Amino acid sequence: MTLTGQSHRVADDYPTRISQGAQRINRGDPTVWAGRSGPITDTELAAHDRDGYHVIPELLPESEVQALRAELDRLIADPGVRADERTIVERRTAQVRSIFEVHAISAVIAELAADERIRGRAEQILGSDVYLHQSRINAMPGFVGNGFYWHSDFETWHAEDGMPRPRAVSMSIALVPNYAYNGGLMVMPGSHRTFVSCIGATPDNHYKSSLQEQETGVPDTHSLTALAEEYGIDQFTGPAGSALMFDCNVMHGSGSNITPYPRSNIFLVFNSVENPLVAPFAAPQPRPAFVAARSVTPLR
Amino acid sequence: MTLTGQSHRVADDYPTRISQGAQRINRGDPTVWAGRSGPITDTELAAHDRDGYHVIPELLPESEVQALRAELDRLIADPGVRADERTIVERRTAQVRSIFEVHAISAVIAELAADERIRGRAEQILGSDVYLHQSRINAMPGFVGNGFYWHSDFETWHAEDGMPRPRAVSMSIALVPNYAYNGGLMVMPGSHRTFVSCIGATPDNHYKSSLQEQETGVPDTHSLTALAEEYGIDQFTGPAGSALMFDCNVMHGSGSNITPYPRSNIFLVFNSVENPLVAPFAAPQPRPAFVAARSVTPLR
Repeated sequence: MTLTGQSHRVADDYPTRISQGAQRINRGDPTVWAGRSGPITDTELAAHDRDGYHVIPELLPESEVQALRAELDRLIADPGVRADERTIVERRTAQVRSIFEVHAISAVIAELAADERIRGRAEQILGSDVYLHQSRINAMPGFVGNGFYWHSDFETWHAEDGMPRPRAVSMSIALVPNYAYNGGLMVMPGSHRTFVSCIGATPDNHYKSSLQEQETGVPDTHSLTALAEEYGIDQFTGPAGSALMFDCNVMHGSGSNITPYPRSNIFLVFNSVENPLVAPFAAPQPRPAFVAARSVTPLR
Repeated sequence: MTLTGQSHRVADDYPTRISQGAQRINRGDPTVWAGRSGPITDTELAAHDRDGYHVIPELLPESEVQALRAELDRLIADPGVRADERTIVERRTAQVRSIFEVHAISAVIAELAADERIRGRAEQILGSDVYLHQSRINAMPGFVGNGFYWHSDFETWHAEDGMPRPRAVSMSIALVPNYAYNGGLMVMPGSHRTFVSCIGATPDNHYKSSLQEQETGVPDTHSLTALAEEYGIDQFTGPAGSALMFDCNVMHGSGSNITPYPRSNIFLVFNSVENPLVAPFAAPQPRPAFVAARSVTPLR
């Protein structure tokens, strides 16, 4: 194993993809960083700090949701987008499941991410200017939606993208109703304060399979049981236009969706401009820039 | 294809496993049959007739639930039970998932099924004496619980067991809490009034695979979408000791369970003594008696 570009590892506060002995590490970094005001109320901000997430029940009015759904339909129907390497197609059904770096593909999404109602929340939580670490549209089909096993996004972003610290926050905007039974996101509230290091080295080009199904970077069942006992499980449900803003280290996952109701959402990841990527902490090479932006372009 | 033992097919009101053109057939038979009083209130009975199910929030006190959980643990740990053909083991994990005909294996379960609080409800709904068509204990593990796709039990019992009419009712008794997110049962309320005939002939010895995973007898997505639009989806959640009593033809299914919380329950199917099995309506041979009792022994 080469150590090229991994000399910063000596100072790694969040070791993961280790060979044995999964650890649960107390997060040293803040969740809410001081320094910026914005659209989040004090109550919401306190909830976000405590739980690692907060819900915005009516972020977007129906008219905007309709326009975004139309944009999603347009993108999925575009043969050029379908053929793009940034588009992930479901293995079994050949349906488009995700389009990555969608803010670079769609002006509508770029404008949405920069909107004060959205970007402003990220800046307020992270206490700095922000940029898009990742953006995507997800279209989880009905009947055969597979869900994602439990994971911390930061675990992956740290190991595979070289994100130094958990100073990033994600927003998931529902484009259709999220029920308790159509594969909505489950989170363990408070789990963002614990970093669960995962067992197992990262294989080459891991991202190609991991975007469809998690295999490496999976927390052990012992740690998950302990986290669920300590924190419990909340589930995000809400109408189209509602949104969930969640810390990059909160433990989350989703079940399958056998209902006829598809589940589509826009997923935006904001990273602090003061937390730029370095070499991956536990992977042979960084993932492509369309999955993890390697240049910092502050959103305005 | 042989027609042996299938001469009653000319009078089949519920054709299924057909080669093409899925039908949705209005059920001619009642859901609640007249003639018996019992522990169900008029309100519950009206709900059952309308929705195809009713929930009994506190059927069993905690002390009885604990005794039943202990019995489940004892059965799963018994090497003789594990080796029994009536015990179904999960493909991937080798964990015991179900034990069939459990009332013949366990005196505790036999006594439970015959209890007035349980048998009495079945008699009241079916308007006659009842017998156990099927009994089982299910132990759906945490993390890897797979769920069951949408189906009507009666579709299978009619096609593969030769149950003439939908005059059977099931009770699922929760031995652990059922949350919205650990694979709890979803039902389409009111769907019991529609029989959805399924496409595709029944293969030989279909039951061996179908008890682990549904493959034949699966409603088409067009019919499921129409049913969900008309009836919506309810989900059964409740503490240990609560129970769901549901009609044999209600469309139901369950999602996966990635949570650390296992889900175990007792499942009892009561058939009217006036509705004994005949030859299968759409299968080469009947399933084994431990899956579908072929002798009628009224419960007392």
